[in-house]
Amino acid sequence: HVPFEPTEHPHRRFNPLTGKHVLVSPHRTKRPWKGQTEEPVIASLPSYDKECNLCPGNERSGGFTNPKYDDTFTFPNDYPALLPESLPTIVPSSNPSPIDSLFQNQPVRGRCKVICFHPRHDLTLARMVPSEIERIIEEWKRVYVDEGEQLRKEGDEGYVQIFENRGAMMGASAPHPHGQVWSLSYIPDEPFTELQNLSSSSSYHLSSPSQSTYPTRDDGHPCLLCSYAAEEVKRKERIVAIDEESGWVGLVPFWATWPYEVILLPYKRHIPSLLQLTQIEIQGLARILKKILVRYDNLFSCPFPYSMGLHQSPLPPLKSESDVAHIHFHFYPPLLRSASVRKFLVGFEMMAEVQRDLTPEQAAEKLRAVEEIHYTERMD
Amino acid sequence: HVPFEPTEHPHRRFNPLTGKHVLVSPHRTKRPWKGQTEEPVIASLPSYDKECNLCPGNERSGGFTNPKYDDTFTFPNDYPALLPESLPTIVPSSNPSPIDSLFQNQPVRGRCKVICFHPRHDLTLARMVPSEIERIIEEWKRVYVDEGEQLRKEGDEGYVQIFENRGAMMGASAPHPHGQVWSLSYIPDEPFTELQNLSSSSSYHLSSPSQSTYPTRDDGHPCLLCSYAAEEVKRKERIVAIDEESGWVGLVPFWATWPYEVILLPYKRHIPSLLQLTQIEIQGLARILKKILVRYDNLFSCPFPYSMGLHQSPLPPLKSESDVAHIHFHFYPPLLRSASVRKFLVGFEMMAEVQRDLTPEQAAEKLRAVEEIHYTERMD
Ligand SMILES: O=P(O)(O)O[C@H]1O[C@H](CO)[C@@H](O)[C@H](O)[C@H]1O
Ligand SMILES: O=P(O)(O)O[C@H]1O[C@H](CO)[C@@H](O)[C@H](O)[C@H]1O
Repeated sequence: HVPFEPTEHPHRRFNPLTGKHVLVSPHRTKRPWKGQTEEPVIASLPSYDKECNLCPGNERSGGFTNPKYDDTFTFPNDYPALLPESLPTIVPSSNPSPIDSLFQNQPVRGRCKVICFHPRHDLTLARMVPSEIERIIEEWKRVYVDEGEQLRKEGDEGYVQIFENRGAMMGASAPHPHGQVWSLSYIPDEPFTELQNLSSSSSYHLSSPSQSTYPTRDDGHPCLLCSYAAEEVKRKERIVAIDEESGWVGLVPFWATWPYEVILLPYKRHIPSLLQLTQIEIQGLARILKKILVRYDNLFSCPFPYSMGLHQSPLPPLKSESDVAHIHFHFYPPLLRSASVRKFLVGFEMMAEVQRDLTPEQAAEKLRAVEEIHYTERMD
Repeated sequence: HVPFEPTEHPHRRFNPLTGKHVLVSPHRTKRPWKGQTEEPVIASLPSYDKECNLCPGNERSGGFTNPKYDDTFTFPNDYPALLPESLPTIVPSSNPSPIDSLFQNQPVRGRCKVICFHPRHDLTLARMVPSEIERIIEEWKRVYVDEGEQLRKEGDEGYVQIFENRGAMMGASAPHPHGQVWSLSYIPDEPFTELQNLSSSSSYHLSSPSQSTYPTRDDGHPCLLCSYAAEEVKRKERIVAIDEESGWVGLVPFWATWPYEVILLPYKRHIPSLLQLTQIEIQGLARILKKILVRYDNLFSCPFPYSMGLHQSPLPPLKSESDVAHIHFHFYPPLLRSASVRKFLVGFEMMAEVQRDLTPEQAAEKLRAVEEIHYTERMD
């Protein structure tokens, strides 16, 4: 019998947050690539671009004009996917039938906002100083509280989804550093499934006495992510960056789908949302966000494209509420081999199961091996 | 109260096959697009390309040489994601702990094959004649039976996944018409979930006497897809193509994620797999595959990129087995507005929930409105 060797043998891993699997084919990076390559990203942008929708003082589509902001700047998306209007009514069928269960419509509402991260057109999160990133975290928190209160007032059990699409390859329509916040009158599928798995597994899986060093929720039990993050810090092999002072860790999850996927989360205490972060934790978050993104950019010496999103309590938690959520950021970057060769999650991945070509441990090792200083700063 | 209008009001729809939702934002197609555009596809290819890995008589990577085939041609993928070797053994931990449930590894095995659809380098399914497509269906069936028997012999409860990545945008590394077959020692997530939903819902949802016109399984009940397909044929609004003689329908499903997603399935009888198709049904399938793909290419006058996959019984069904599966093809094409502007399923879609910009009914209408003759044939 051959003993199992994850860097050699095809295998499946289980994602306890989504309940799905990933097929890992570590031997597959050897194949040559003859398929589509991506356009190189223009390396240097002006600090102000008069054609940019997001630069201070510029006109946006729809006749709006941006203020001459010198900090972050949040405004309603001019082409929102959700509208705030009161919900339309579905007229019930006069002749209801069991087949109707296959045609389920549910009107929804919400608001879509854009957050400009910085007045400078040419900056990215990776190239800002931590104090500038702190300002963005403070703005996320302000919008989360504002939008959450609004949703509660309207009687919606909603969700506030904060995310960033970075780079044209990830559908970002402008290079100006910005993210988005969509607030919804419902809890969407991804966080819904995560919250279900967090609440069902936390009570029994991981509460044996030998794990007593894990952080815990208010009820004294570690949640799935409390145990997972603390255990990864012990095991070390998947860690990309750590901020010991504030207790944040960034790592390639054991079940990562994307080649260089990262999850960033607190490992010393159970923190449900942005609302509960101390000043030290906000500062640490700014530092580690920069560290991760610098490593991303340095990997292939390019502005690394990704989608990033924040999962936390659906709405800013009230004192009385349970603390199922454990705040975390997902980073899903598409690149696989170089600045121009991406991973395609297509045929097999869409029809059957997601598949990856290098192990998460190998990906973490590569991200640890690059320099800590941003490549553009080294070239000066 | 405003009555609900699906072409105006943002809403969610439920996908009973996956148990997930899609956010529909029909008003959102109005936004201008300033983001990434795709490279135009070279319109005319030579019928033979000496650089192509897949053309008859050519050398492939790894030193293999293709025969001078004049039909379909199937060979093992030179860079397979799965290997056929016997499974390695995981040495159980000497100190098992509840935390191990968060680090679940499962060695898997399988075989990856490539099926060249035609000796001609420049053809696509859309431009073949139905008798040529019939040959491909026969080859799918042969490989399905072969691979299925092999899996059974090895004692694996596996799955044979047939799919095609068409176009560089969908990760196809060669334009030569070809598809793939991956056979696996396990049932992957997507068909696993579908089969679960097919078997649980079929018994109660849709078996009221008023639906007695739906086709049924052997146990006398219509399955979810028996009822769904037959009902869509009645409702007509989402149909793209229909072959009445053989009982196949292609339609944009009510819960479609991709702008022009299509599901193709039999609506007159419950058919678990390729194995049960009559000669008439195979001929009808070839005709309707062509019809759908011609409409795709004509929509933006380009070789329409897509991933296509076949869901059916995991292995060729034995007589004694239950017939939960209802054979169907999924088509997931990325284009949204033109040959060069795709839909990005990124930030919000990855972190929260998939989202679409036009309704499935509008997409079906656009696909019905194009010509029936392929645009390259009309230009002659
Ligand atoms: O095997 P191919 O066609 O070279 O590869 C393509 O299809 C595979 C199966 O969907 C994917 O895993 C690859 O990312 C993609 O590039
Ligand atoms: O609103 P944006 O940035 O123009 O649009 C981008 O992000 C959205 C949210 O992830 C997606 O729905 C769009 O497909 C994408 O192009």
